Amino acid sequence: MRALTVDLAHPGSLSLTELPDPEPGPEDLLVEGLAVGICGTDREIVRGEFGVGGTLVIGHESLGRVISGPGFEPGSLVAGVVRRPDPVPCVACARGEFDMCRNGQYTERGITGLDGYASTLWTVPASYAVGVSSSTGVLVEPASVVVKAWERLDQLALFGFDSVLVTGAGPIGLLAALIGVQRGLDVHVFDLAVDGPKPDLVEALGATYHRSLPDHQVVIEATGAPKLVARLLGRELVCLTGVPSTEVVSADLGQANRDMVLRNGIVFGTVNANVRHYREAAAVLDRADDDWLSAMITRRVPLESCREAFEQRPDDVKVVLEL
Amino acid sequence: MRALTVDLAHPGSLSLTELPDPEPGPEDLLVEGLAVGICGTDREIVRGEFGVGGTLVIGHESLGRVISGPGFEPGSLVAGVVRRPDPVPCVACARGEFDMCRNGQYTERGITGLDGYASTLWTVPASYAVGVSSSTGVLVEPASVVVKAWERLDQLALFGFDSVLVTGAGPIGLLAALIGVQRGLDVHVFDLAVDGPKPDLVEALGATYHRSLPDHQVVIEATGAPKLVARLLGRELVCLTGVPSTEVVSADLGQANRDMVLRNGIVFGTVNANVRHYREAAAVLDRADDDWLSAMITRRVPLESCREAFEQRPDDVKVVLEL
Repeated sequence: MRALTVDLAHPGSLSLTELPDPEPGPEDLLVEGLAVGICGTDREIVRGEFGVGGTLVIGHESLGRVISGPGFEPGSLVAGVVRRPDPVPCVACARGEFDMCRNGQYTERGITGLDGYASTLWTVPASYAVGVSSSTGVLVEPASVVVKAWERLDQLALFGFDSVLVTGAGPIGLLAALIGVQRGLDVHVFDLAVDGPKPDLVEALGATYHRSLPDHQVVIEATGAPKLVARLLGRELVCLTGVPSTEVVSADLGQANRDMVLRNGIVFGTVNANVRHYREAAAVLDRADDDWLSAMITRRVPLESCREAFEQRPDDVKVVLEL
Repeated sequence: MRALTVDLAHPGSLSLTELPDPEPGPEDLLVEGLAVGICGTDREIVRGEFGVGGTLVIGHESLGRVISGPGFEPGSLVAGVVRRPDPVPCVACARGEFDMCRNGQYTERGITGLDGYASTLWTVPASYAVGVSSSTGVLVEPASVVVKAWERLDQLALFGFDSVLVTGAGPIGLLAALIGVQRGLDVHVFDLAVDGPKPDLVEALGATYHRSLPDHQVVIEATGAPKLVARLLGRELVCLTGVPSTEVVSADLGQANRDMVLRNGIVFGTVNANVRHYREAAAVLDRADDDWLSAMITRRVPLESCREAFEQRPDDVKVVLEL
């Protein structure tokens, strides 16, 4: 099979490699890899800024077609779950809540310790596969992260809310806005983009696009921009989904602390997703307009030009590598 | 009666005033005021930095002896609840959760819109009074704030914890540590004080006193120092209880955001308390060593020298004004 590998110790080591075909165990699906979505974490891995050594098949936003295995019809479309629990389970992993792992000993397909999905064949335990309906199912992994973010918002918002502000109109922000609209909320999206597809994608949802920051108190932050995060601290309920690098900024943490206390405010981070979030993410995509989802995928890159998939271009929303 | 009043529009307007005796309604207790504790909010009010105009009897950390009224024996010791719900209830106040008020239209005895408890006589609806056992019952209000902080920690800590770090060994920090010890946790307290009563008070609890910041992941922050808060952002679960003023600091919010996301971390603020928290706070004080509680009250100031009660002296933990 052909696979896209990186040597985590060497920046820029991305290569298209011939590897032995995988051998599925009795619980595994054998899957023909169709596409992987590329995100900021993939770019960090390719630049050598993330990951802990060794050679890895990259790719965690997966889409494939079942060849054989238990529980799925051959020919059906699936995506694979990314994270696996610790070998020695922490309190969260022991309960099956590996997305909330407390000791950091989890593994992740395509990120940490396990080969990913950017190969023409892959296997996955059937219990870690979720069925999707169309080629936009490659969005199910980022959608699963957003479904988990919404689940945690629900847990932490003691009194409900009618409107939500999403900061950043990238894939995570747009999928967060999609779910907000599906829930019947008044959804506002803040981004700096003037041109390109983002304003149209937001407005096509029925959400409101802003280029200056509105003052809504419930926020899903999806830029990972520390200067913006500094402005959001102190609001009632702020969900952080971005993974920025170290960046020192000047911020009025006195006022932010004061506001958080006087408002009983919460800021929380969320990462990764469990199997139930992938299933709900597949349902979210099924309820969405497939043309809108397709419009989010602004570039489809063939495997032969794989390096181009990891470039960031001004009008990119989601870039997908076709396998 | 004699009362300690401030004109909220005029810094330094603290005066000992003769006011008409209060007239209790049928649901009210008439109470002989014995003492009020002084906290940072009181000092802000006296300096004219908090509050919204008009003349107010100050004092929200109360202790009094019942003269008459429903539900309490004459002679019994009581403290009064501080906050009252909105006149037009918000979603939280409508459920009785006025300590979580969403619209800021609440009133507070001695702080916002209602006379406080620093008077030789006061009234309080019996439903907003809680019985206490001794003169250290003047600590029931700060203890109620800490009981609520612990209740919210319990709600937000999905997987429990065995140890807790408390930052700041003032009254809030010490009461937070007391509750941690009563729960059987491994309690660590960080403060900069070398001399004075704080290290001894921490060690007398069986907690560990630190002068450099330990790296525990569950934190109750009780300094309100923005530079310290900057160092705590990114830990797993951080409860903010301080109310600092505006202060711009340099902070690595990139790393803090990254850590919060990758750890599914939470930072939350908590303020005020409901009636159930006062009742539990009275039980916390009953379970504590009364000598330890008395040692927290490092100055008792007579009403005639009332201005001294609002000074901050190096070895102060809690200052109480005797009425």
